[in-house]
Amino acid sequence: MSIVYRLFILTTLFFSIAQSIMAQTSKRPRDYGIKLGVLPTGPFNAITDVPGVRVGQVTLKEGQTIRTGVTAILPHDGNQFQQKSPAAIYIGNGFGKLTGYSQVEELGTLETPIVLTNTLSVPTAADALIDYTLAQKGNEQVRSVNSVVGETNDGFLNDIRGRHVTKQHVLDAIRQAKTGPVEEGNVGAGTGTVCFGFKGGIGTASRKLPASLGGYTVGALVQTNFGGVLQLAGVPVGVALGRYDFKKNLDGSCMMIVLTDAPLDARNLKRLAKRAFMGLAQTGGIASNGSGDYVIAVSTAYQISHEATTSFDELKVLRNDNVSPLFLAAIEATEEAIINSLFAAQTLTGDQGHQVEQLPIEKVVDLLKKADQAR
Amino acid sequence: MSIVYRLFILTTLFFSIAQSIMAQTSKRPRDYGIKLGVLPTGPFNAITDVPGVRVGQVTLKEGQTIRTGVTAILPHDGNQFQQKSPAAIYIGNGFGKLTGYSQVEELGTLETPIVLTNTLSVPTAADALIDYTLAQKGNEQVRSVNSVVGETNDGFLNDIRGRHVTKQHVLDAIRQAKTGPVEEGNVGAGTGTVCFGFKGGIGTASRKLPASLGGYTVGALVQTNFGGVLQLAGVPVGVALGRYDFKKNLDGSCMMIVLTDAPLDARNLKRLAKRAFMGLAQTGGIASNGSGDYVIAVSTAYQISHEATTSFDELKVLRNDNVSPLFLAAIEATEEAIINSLFAAQTLTGDQGHQVEQLPIEKVVDLLKKADQAR
Amino acid sequence: MSIVYRLFILTTLFFSIAQSIMAQTSKRPRDYGIKLGVLPTGPFNAITDVPGVRVGQVTLKEGQTIRTGVTAILPHDGNQFQQKSPAAIYIGNGFGKLTGYSQVEELGTLETPIVLTNTLSVPTAADALIDYTLAQKGNEQVRSVNSVVGETNDGFLNDIRGRHVTKQHVLDAIRQAKTGPVEEGNVGAGTGTVCFGFKGGIGTASRKLPASLGGYTVGALVQTNFGGVLQLAGVPVGVALGRYDFKKNLDGSCMMIVLTDAPLDARNLKRLAKRAFMGLAQTGGIASNGSGDYVIAVSTAYQISHEATTSFDELKVLRNDNVSPLFLAAIEATEEAIINSLFAAQTLTGDQGHQVEQLPIEKVVDLLKKADQAR
Amino acid sequence: MSIVYRLFILTTLFFSIAQSIMAQTSKRPRDYGIKLGVLPTGPFNAITDVPGVRVGQVTLKEGQTIRTGVTAILPHDGNQFQQKSPAAIYIGNGFGKLTGYSQVEELGTLETPIVLTNTLSVPTAADALIDYTLAQKGNEQVRSVNSVVGETNDGFLNDIRGRHVTKQHVLDAIRQAKTGPVEEGNVGAGTGTVCFGFKGGIGTASRKLPASLGGYTVGALVQTNFGGVLQLAGVPVGVALGRYDFKKNLDGSCMMIVLTDAPLDARNLKRLAKRAFMGLAQTGGIASNGSGDYVIAVSTAYQISHEATTSFDELKVLRNDNVSPLFLAAIEATEEAIINSLFAAQTLTGDQGHQVEQLPIEKVVDLLKKADQAR
Repeated sequence: MSIVYRLFILTTLFFSIAQSIMAQTSKRPRDYGIKLGVLPTGPFNAITDVPGVRVGQVTLKEGQTIRTGVTAILPHDGNQFQQKSPAAIYIGNGFGKLTGYSQVEELGTLETPIVLTNTLSVPTAADALIDYTLAQKGNEQVRSVNSVVGETNDGFLNDIRGRHVTKQHVLDAIRQAKTGPVEEGNVGAGTGTVCFGFKGGIGTASRKLPASLGGYTVGALVQTNFGGVLQLAGVPVGVALGRYDFKKNLDGSCMMIVLTDAPLDARNLKRLAKRAFMGLAQTGGIASNGSGDYVIAVSTAYQISHEATTSFDELKVLRNDNVSPLFLAAIEATEEAIINSLFAAQTLTGDQGHQVEQLPIEKVVDLLKKADQAR
Repeated sequence: MSIVYRLFILTTLFFSIAQSIMAQTSKRPRDYGIKLGVLPTGPFNAITDVPGVRVGQVTLKEGQTIRTGVTAILPHDGNQFQQKSPAAIYIGNGFGKLTGYSQVEELGTLETPIVLTNTLSVPTAADALIDYTLAQKGNEQVRSVNSVVGETNDGFLNDIRGRHVTKQHVLDAIRQAKTGPVEEGNVGAGTGTVCFGFKGGIGTASRKLPASLGGYTVGALVQTNFGGVLQLAGVPVGVALGRYDFKKNLDGSCMMIVLTDAPLDARNLKRLAKRAFMGLAQTGGIASNGSGDYVIAVSTAYQISHEATTSFDELKVLRNDNVSPLFLAAIEATEEAIINSLFAAQTLTGDQGHQVEQLPIEKVVDLLKKADQAR
Repeated sequence: MSIVYRLFILTTLFFSIAQSIMAQTSKRPRDYGIKLGVLPTGPFNAITDVPGVRVGQVTLKEGQTIRTGVTAILPHDGNQFQQKSPAAIYIGNGFGKLTGYSQVEELGTLETPIVLTNTLSVPTAADALIDYTLAQKGNEQVRSVNSVVGETNDGFLNDIRGRHVTKQHVLDAIRQAKTGPVEEGNVGAGTGTVCFGFKGGIGTASRKLPASLGGYTVGALVQTNFGGVLQLAGVPVGVALGRYDFKKNLDGSCMMIVLTDAPLDARNLKRLAKRAFMGLAQTGGIASNGSGDYVIAVSTAYQISHEATTSFDELKVLRNDNVSPLFLAAIEATEEAIINSLFAAQTLTGDQGHQVEQLPIEKVVDLLKKADQAR
Repeated sequence: MSIVYRLFILTTLFFSIAQSIMAQTSKRPRDYGIKLGVLPTGPFNAITDVPGVRVGQVTLKEGQTIRTGVTAILPHDGNQFQQKSPAAIYIGNGFGKLTGYSQVEELGTLETPIVLTNTLSVPTAADALIDYTLAQKGNEQVRSVNSVVGETNDGFLNDIRGRHVTKQHVLDAIRQAKTGPVEEGNVGAGTGTVCFGFKGGIGTASRKLPASLGGYTVGALVQTNFGGVLQLAGVPVGVALGRYDFKKNLDGSCMMIVLTDAPLDARNLKRLAKRAFMGLAQTGGIASNGSGDYVIAVSTAYQISHEATTSFDELKVLRNDNVSPLFLAAIEATEEAIINSLFAAQTLTGDQGHQVEQLPIEKVVDLLKKADQAR
């Protein structure tokens, strides 16, 4: 048996196990045979398919009113401040409270983990990232930290004014971050979110380019809390379910995190980030006035050292004319991550007795399958 | 017979006539019963549904090699330089040669008609706009003109290096501009374009908000010349037809012009423009590296005089929290305009014997109908 | 005695008293006869010359290591969240931690007081602004707050890693905010800053346009902590004093707040903000790599209500062609505010025994006077 | 005699000759002993001190009414389209007609020479750049050209509406481009410009960093046609000469071209470009409403090939924390280039009998010398 064949068997096995691990949590659209886009996924169909990427989540679900949490994304397992990642941020619609934008934009680098939480807990999370960074070995002289914290507003289901997220919750999310499958739905920063009038949450997905196009992986993780006219895999589910309007329920926000092992510089990461926003468009999102829609794109292919012994960065980055397949990958991964969040989320009752129903999975699957057969 | 009823009859009649006028040119998706989105269209389902807006086109189809042209869009029928329109430009992907960007961005106004043509004829068109403006009555002292010219590259079907568009062609397009139905497909600046591997061209569509949301109209006109994985009304037609790849044929560009009679200032027009780009995303466009994707958004609700007797602009503009329905309208109108361009375009042979097939309408309609029944 | 004459006497008197009040704190450049620019100042030569604007500061100077503080600027004395101010932010150099950027940019409004503090206390201040806003009468239903907090890094003189600023300090600064003279130098957020290698701090200045140009006031307040080759009123003081280099000591940041009673919309406020950055350039600042240079520009001429009974904003704003004199005013006010900060700041010893000398006022005044006589 | 000493002699000799060559045209500020800034100049104190950079100019001065021209800047002597230069554009104030912005911004490269001319001749120049590029050996398949053309408005002295610049003039300017001294004042695109109410024109200058900071050269070339309150080497010459106001004569534009042999990527070139605008601020320019102030920054350190055999760009670029000295160099070079343009320009009568006086050099030199002695 040739080595190649053994590797093939091993890989197949790995994929099966990976998928079954994911499947344990809840059935994802692909488990129902629903396929989005034309590119293959990575083994976990998750942002963690990008090698080295870790995700940690803390879910706060207490009493009748607390429905919130924290999701942390770590590009690599080193000291993020000392080994900064090339990064860029695209602002789809700026009605949001993201911190850290201007420095990422100016310098092209990310120097903390990315943390997602609720709107009014952003300062707490930003402060926790400072705690985290100052306390890390090797950072004893650090006097400036650019915390990157995103948010959506879970104030319908969560007592957001109570600001129940603490710095410890944020530090816990970072500490617990791990590779492998990522929990989706009512978890972490997605615990109390609402999307297209249904229960939203955390979702993730990935795409892997064929070897001929570099074999790179693009992973997306989203915190879905926005509105529009829901469309799943192109099927106008929102209309079919009679669940849309074009006046109310449009608002909300979406945080999109895109990671890739493709060697992109900050300029091309910004372009990649813009494509993730096109993935949101594919789901029928409209980036309404009140929406805070941001994409943070990061490459794990190389790092920029905080301290250097030379005056130069020596980079080997993808040429402009080789980035288009990655654009498609970012669109598809983001679209699927959003849909995954809707499939995983479960009906939730929260603050002030508000209740938000989950997507009626059976009906939706039925609609999608019929549409698929028609194609 | 009550007045209301008579008006109803009259309106119905008007719509029928308007649609039949459009239908004369070629059958549009709606003529096949294909419906996109949730908002109603204006009477012509065209950018000219925005009152006062005019479109003029000159088509160059000569010999074996010339397949290009000019499309001009005029926001109002006055002197555009003296009565500037509030405007904004969104750059989806900047690999293009649009002129006039920075001044529109800085001052928030448009002072010439918008002209579309091919990539290498942009200077000719920009020069023609100067001719046009300088020659207009009342502009005798004008010494500065910000020509706004967009383009896509028709160099596959057209002998683009020959630069066959003349200033006269541009002036003719402006002069012939008229309200009412707009010709689509292989016409004007869309004569030689290619979209998703099929023949592209000019397309247009509109949306009208219900009176409760202001009753505003949003019209879009597009010049389609881009790639991706085609999706029509959510149906993955590109995949079904086996007509996509994710390496080649991705490139190209899309010019999108969005006009509205909603009273928006430049800031909110920029936001509206951004949503048109989301309409492109809905069709499966990916804004590849080589794509020049720009949206020019203009309001016809008011003008800013070049000369003024006062130091102030007195404006009555829509509040931020009332713009979201317009966003949806811009997305839908742009998506449909793109699809309309594909339906109207016809198989064309051009420079170097290159031939581009039109969309296989029957197959596509069949796919769309089946998908629709499944919903 | 005519009414006009009496008003003249009264105004003169008011100016004298105002100036003497300012003079009590410390001698400002103008007290030495040093004049910058060509436009006249307002009565206090301070940001508070813009009617209704209030400034509050809390200075933390404890033990050997704490040298920091908070400066709060309030555009009007109403409920800032309910009555938002038109605003814009210009990023001169984005190596900084300003919060609130994207929402101000997207919506064109400011909904909290502006707070300045040190780099690592930004989250604390942002959180305090949420406390402040949620607690305000009328804001019982508020679930989203866009805190605007700027900073510079006082880590050379201050134990910045200790994060000694508390939410109470921020709330105190806001509560104590008042109209009238503004304390400059080692105060509030300028307590521990360093500028051009000398002790920096808080500075403020204003300009008043002649009635023929609208009679508007432009006020600037700065937190100076940056480097370059110091130039005072055009005189190369840095070179004369041998206090510059072009490798080290270039870094640092400058927060610039510009307020005006001119009726500008967000677009023209952004342009005004950009000019303040030109005022920084006039002092020899170079916006080095490590500098976080931001300008926040706000108009007090009108407010945008959070809640509205109508769909429209009715605005009377200055036309584009009337803004240039305001640009000059913003440049001059910012330049003078920076210089005022240097004149007011005093030699300070702080963390790790670091000491930063104040500008050698006598020498500098001597240089400036000689230069002035030579003109 | 050691080799080092011989080299020193040779270098000194070279500088003397270079300066005497420049001096032949007209006396520059440095010939009067006026020194700006703290960094040394290159041998020619011109943009051509950046190795390989060439400048060509065509001056149109015919009859009573034609006072215009063309200035072309070529980053290297190869095929610019095939060997693109890393580049960025900063928009100081966007009231101008610069072409090529969005593509440079999106891709980070410059693919044509940079051409400057008058406002209404921009399309002609852009078209000429297409001619030039299509005709170049090796470009036979080129179907897309991003012409970069800047302008200022010489309509006060020049019959700008007559559009007297032809494509041949532009091609001639490019063809004649050469290294070495650059003619300044009423030449090329500066033939008919007005600056601070005096005759403006073309100006150039350079700075060379010490070897310890990389030894890089930064060169600037400007087309001066703007207003404000003139300040020369910090001396308020405008006020001293009574030649300023803050209402009229503020308008106009400034094109600034900055070249460097420092290996910067597009992101850091954008930052460098922003600093050139700070050099304009140093001269008292205010970037008035009507000003089109743009900076185009280009690195000559490396090129990006149009065609490539690999998927990657391998770059060795300066780290963020090494760019600050270049920022200072860009500020100083731009400031001095502007002042050089004013010193070189000569009184000119033109269209409609308009006359613009040159700077009263003697008076100004006297003022500057006195100020210098006072320091």
